Amino acid sequence: MKEFTVCPDPDDARLTRRVAGVDQEGRSIETAVVVERPLTLFLNGQEIVTMMTIGDHPRYLAVGYLLNQNMLRADDEITAIDHDDELETVVVRTKRKTDFEKKLRKKTLTSGCAQGTVFGDLMEKFEEIRLDPEAILKTSWLYALTRKINTAPSLYLAAGAIHGCVLCEEDRPLLYMEDVGRHNAIDKIAGYMHLEGIPAAGKIFYTTGRLTSEMVIKTVQMRIPILISRSGFTAWGVDLARQAGLTLIGRAKGKRFIALSGERRIVFDADPAAIGEEGAHSRRKASVAEDAA
Amino acid sequence: MKEFTVCPDPDDARLTRRVAGVDQEGRSIETAVVVERPLTLFLNGQEIVTMMTIGDHPRYLAVGYLLNQNMLRADDEITAIDHDDELETVVVRTKRKTDFEKKLRKKTLTSGCAQGTVFGDLMEKFEEIRLDPEAILKTSWLYALTRKINTAPSLYLAAGAIHGCVLCEEDRPLLYMEDVGRHNAIDKIAGYMHLEGIPAAGKIFYTTGRLTSEMVIKTVQMRIPILISRSGFTAWGVDLARQAGLTLIGRAKGKRFIALSGERRIVFDADPAAIGEEGAHSRRKASVAEDAA
Repeated sequence: MKEFTVCPDPDDARLTRRVAGVDQEGRSIETAVVVERPLTLFLNGQEIVTMMTIGDHPRYLAVGYLLNQNMLRADDEITAIDHDDELETVVVRTKRKTDFEKKLRKKTLTSGCAQGTVFGDLMEKFEEIRLDPEAILKTSWLYALTRKINTAPSLYLAAGAIHGCVLCEEDRPLLYMEDVGRHNAIDKIAGYMHLEGIPAAGKIFYTTGRLTSEMVIKTVQMRIPILISRSGFTAWGVDLARQAGLTLIGRAKGKRFIALSGERRIVFDADPAAIGEEGAHSRRKASVAEDAA
Repeated sequence: MKEFTVCPDPDDARLTRRVAGVDQEGRSIETAVVVERPLTLFLNGQEIVTMMTIGDHPRYLAVGYLLNQNMLRADDEITAIDHDDELETVVVRTKRKTDFEKKLRKKTLTSGCAQGTVFGDLMEKFEEIRLDPEAILKTSWLYALTRKINTAPSLYLAAGAIHGCVLCEEDRPLLYMEDVGRHNAIDKIAGYMHLEGIPAAGKIFYTTGRLTSEMVIKTVQMRIPILISRSGFTAWGVDLARQAGLTLIGRAKGKRFIALSGERRIVFDADPAAIGEEGAHSRRKASVAEDAA
């Protein structure tokens, strides 16, 4: 699979809008902002949820959401996915009768980014999962990945206020999805992997968002043994990562990073001194978008 | 009301935990991470939701959540608020019989930070609200506020991975609340204002998080006419702000900011050139927490 098989398309006119305003000097400016639109998800005729999304991959988002919520099993046969752009709906149909109604009853709102509704038995499979103990992460890969991801054209660089998730292998970013919530971005990758038959073996997951319990649970459910973020940790995220044996790396910026779980998978083959601090060219955060405003 | 009447308490041992890990050199380190704990909210015996929160102000969070979801009306008489630390529950009791069941039926998961569940009729009051047209924001206030907020001791500076919301008046930060989700931080401020009788008149709201539709809706519901963030915008957030006549300022860092709605309230009394770029001393984002690791 080649680098950036899927990547953001900042030129897609549907995903951002130019709006007028003023800057700190009172001068008129125009800037790009990301668009969020509703998408109502149905599973076999039952309304599940309305999500706010940039709307670029409704089919992958729908399937990934259902998989990550355990509403769809890996062996469920999907008979149709009908997306209606005008009605803002996506309907996933399966051969097996699904048991989502019970799942919908108990919901926990998590602390990650919205749609962070984790239904009651999301944890039911978590405890059974064995992540690949042989997987490794070379620090040279980590540095190459963060450099490539930060400099790839993206809605983030064009408009800010958006999260990115990237499925990687060794030093290659493969699938780079963005969305207003990082939960949507990770769900779109889960849906892509399922529908396109991409195995989890040997994969590494990168997110721009915080390492909350929800991100850890979803990464583990996707059977990916390594999760990297440029943002920080929450205590529950660390606890769950340790329980599952997930390698959890946060605050990855420039030469720096911290691993708080699964450190044994890390191979320190790069010299951090040769990497240096994060330069302005690869710095995420609204600075770039501001300059573009 | 004096500056920082409420402010973060990074020394509260319940709110962070020290965890061990390794850094980029493979050296053992110890770092602080924020704790998230469940809190299940009941309204008059009916379970509403389980929230993930740092848990520092359960009573304010409970009342603010219910107010911002329109499950509690401003004139509802609260007869009791029972918080049970061990059971991780908070029960709000009112004189009037509440009609939340209908509200619970239709839910939209928004793109902001989790608990971003916006119930169906959250918008029902939005369109009726008239924000104070006479309110102003001097840019000298804005610069003073961001400087004071960024340098105040906080869980953010101690552990990262947390959002902050601040209720301000002129150049004074009054209530500074943090939480794993910015929706919790804003709800805690709404609850404090309601229970302690703090009027919205003359207030300015500051958030570290993105200016999503949810943040705009809640600010407007709280009758606060000015919303400032160091983060970026979403298109729907801008649309709603314009509809409500909310002054919406984003990407406020150092001397820079952009206003995309309600620009007429801004009084440009400061010289941005005298402010300069954001210095390392006041830079938010995990850099400081990293250095502390």
